[in-house]
Amino acid sequence: MMPGDIQPYIDGVLNGNRRMLSKTITLIESTHADHQKKARLIMDQLLPHTGKAIRMGITGVPGAGKSTFIDALGMMLLEMGHKVAVLAVDPSSVVTGGSVLADKTRMKKLSIEENAFIRPSPSGGKLGGVASKTRESMLVCEAAGFDVIIVETVGAGQSEVAVASMVDFFLILMIAGAGDELQGIKKGVLELADVVAINKADGDNINRAKLAQQQYEMALHISAPSFSGWRPPVVTCSARESKGIKEIWNIVTDHRTILAATGELDMKRRQQSLDWMWYLIKESLTESFNSDPQVKNSLTKIKREVMDGLTSPISAAEKLLTYHNIN
Amino acid sequence: MMPGDIQPYIDGVLNGNRRMLSKTITLIESTHADHQKKARLIMDQLLPHTGKAIRMGITGVPGAGKSTFIDALGMMLLEMGHKVAVLAVDPSSVVTGGSVLADKTRMKKLSIEENAFIRPSPSGGKLGGVASKTRESMLVCEAAGFDVIIVETVGAGQSEVAVASMVDFFLILMIAGAGDELQGIKKGVLELADVVAINKADGDNINRAKLAQQQYEMALHISAPSFSGWRPPVVTCSARESKGIKEIWNIVTDHRTILAATGELDMKRRQQSLDWMWYLIKESLTESFNSDPQVKNSLTKIKREVMDGLTSPISAAEKLLTYHNIN
Repeated sequence: MMPGDIQPYIDGVLNGNRRMLSKTITLIESTHADHQKKARLIMDQLLPHTGKAIRMGITGVPGAGKSTFIDALGMMLLEMGHKVAVLAVDPSSVVTGGSVLADKTRMKKLSIEENAFIRPSPSGGKLGGVASKTRESMLVCEAAGFDVIIVETVGAGQSEVAVASMVDFFLILMIAGAGDELQGIKKGVLELADVVAINKADGDNINRAKLAQQQYEMALHISAPSFSGWRPPVVTCSARESKGIKEIWNIVTDHRTILAATGELDMKRRQQSLDWMWYLIKESLTESFNSDPQVKNSLTKIKREVMDGLTSPISAAEKLLTYHNIN
Repeated sequence: MMPGDIQPYIDGVLNGNRRMLSKTITLIESTHADHQKKARLIMDQLLPHTGKAIRMGITGVPGAGKSTFIDALGMMLLEMGHKVAVLAVDPSSVVTGGSVLADKTRMKKLSIEENAFIRPSPSGGKLGGVASKTRESMLVCEAAGFDVIIVETVGAGQSEVAVASMVDFFLILMIAGAGDELQGIKKGVLELADVVAINKADGDNINRAKLAQQQYEMALHISAPSFSGWRPPVVTCSARESKGIKEIWNIVTDHRTILAATGELDMKRRQQSLDWMWYLIKESLTESFNSDPQVKNSLTKIKREVMDGLTSPISAAEKLLTYHNIN
């Protein structure tokens, strides 16, 4: 690999060239070994130019109004002079090969703006891989001068944890009166929130939104705060009417100010980077274990024995590891 | 290893001999390679005799009255003809080398009963190791004829997840009016509950307990149920006055009946066994990675580079894995 090969990408991204930004993310998302190597070399050069953006995760079940919310928030941020990138982590894209999130047609206003960049979820591969690629894409967007990065996901469980572990602030979008089953927010996801926003608080829905607000407040305040000094507020908003959006952004920036002042932001990001490294290492170790022909040969049989209670998990692990280590 | 070596353990446990039960658990908890091998051989023989007990996890912060509660529940179960084993997972024992949980002196009545077996948390090692040993001990107790196994832990976070992943039913013991910070239940733990019991609902504390009950009900019912058909109830009790204990046990057996009828119990246990196997495999792979001299040599430097943002987590993982694979 000649350094010259990657220089146009690095220069392009640092100059805020959208085409080179897109091409760099395409390299990151590629599964070709050659592209991956190129992407890593580019990343290492871009890394010193990252870290300045506000990284915000947003989740909510279909119907909560995520697209409208991000469109409204994004447009407001552009007016304030920010540059906004919207990325997505969507585990369903792993199955369908396509992506339903961060679709340009969903954010009608934002998608045609010069200072906004919208990128759908990378398709294919496991959640970890998808999330890892989104994380790297986030950094590339930062290097390209986007100072607010919104990482969007659906409220299905696993992907929320992945997204929360790459952002500074995590917002959960809810709607009132749908009943908790209909909300479909999985166990544990609510606990990730730095703010809960009850959307669609407009028209004759305002009172129901206020009631939901009280309920979520109670639910959230029973468990311990995410770090000393921050209690996730519960607010109402109407993305359709652009109401409450400014207030939510104030919460994000207040949170940022506290995080920065206490040193928590720096600590959090350092830890996130380290966690990511360990995640990748463990994934790779497991991957090489799983693709070991000796392991492959006996895995099905041993798994069945464990599930049928004929072999203890300890013995089974021992056996498989012995096969792997002999190789 | 001669089979004769382990036969007395197997026979002893299956005959319900308490001394051999204790000795077998001591083998399981031992870190000697020879003992571990022996323990694995014994486990494989005992495994077909396990699976019939009700496996119940109990957590709650210090002061919630766990000891009194388990003492009261245990005594009631003995009167009903059950045989009760109490085991513990205590991550603090990893640090202190001792154990504060399942201490025989804490459960005054239960500890002198013939049909009760109390074993403190194994000390030393990481949480995963401690939990793994507790899990195996649980199975040995089942093989010895104990038909209710109570696995106790403190409300500190990680160990609750480990315990919830080895039991059929998870109970969280709370007290009223202590304020949520004082309760000290970590984020996500409440989500593991199959029932929440507000203890110390006695004397002039009854009304406060009822209020806490309502609050927890609201908090719990905002997230999705653990499986179709089960909504974790919130109840009050007084372990000191043995009030509400029978009602809680009825909830446990109702849950069991539903779990068994839907096939969920079998599915859950099969999945738990498989998860445990994978957990052990991943732990071992990480362990062998961490103890690799090449990795050890460069880990501190690379970790610092990642935390300082000089190397991307992807490049760092790549580098360390290359060192490891060359070895």
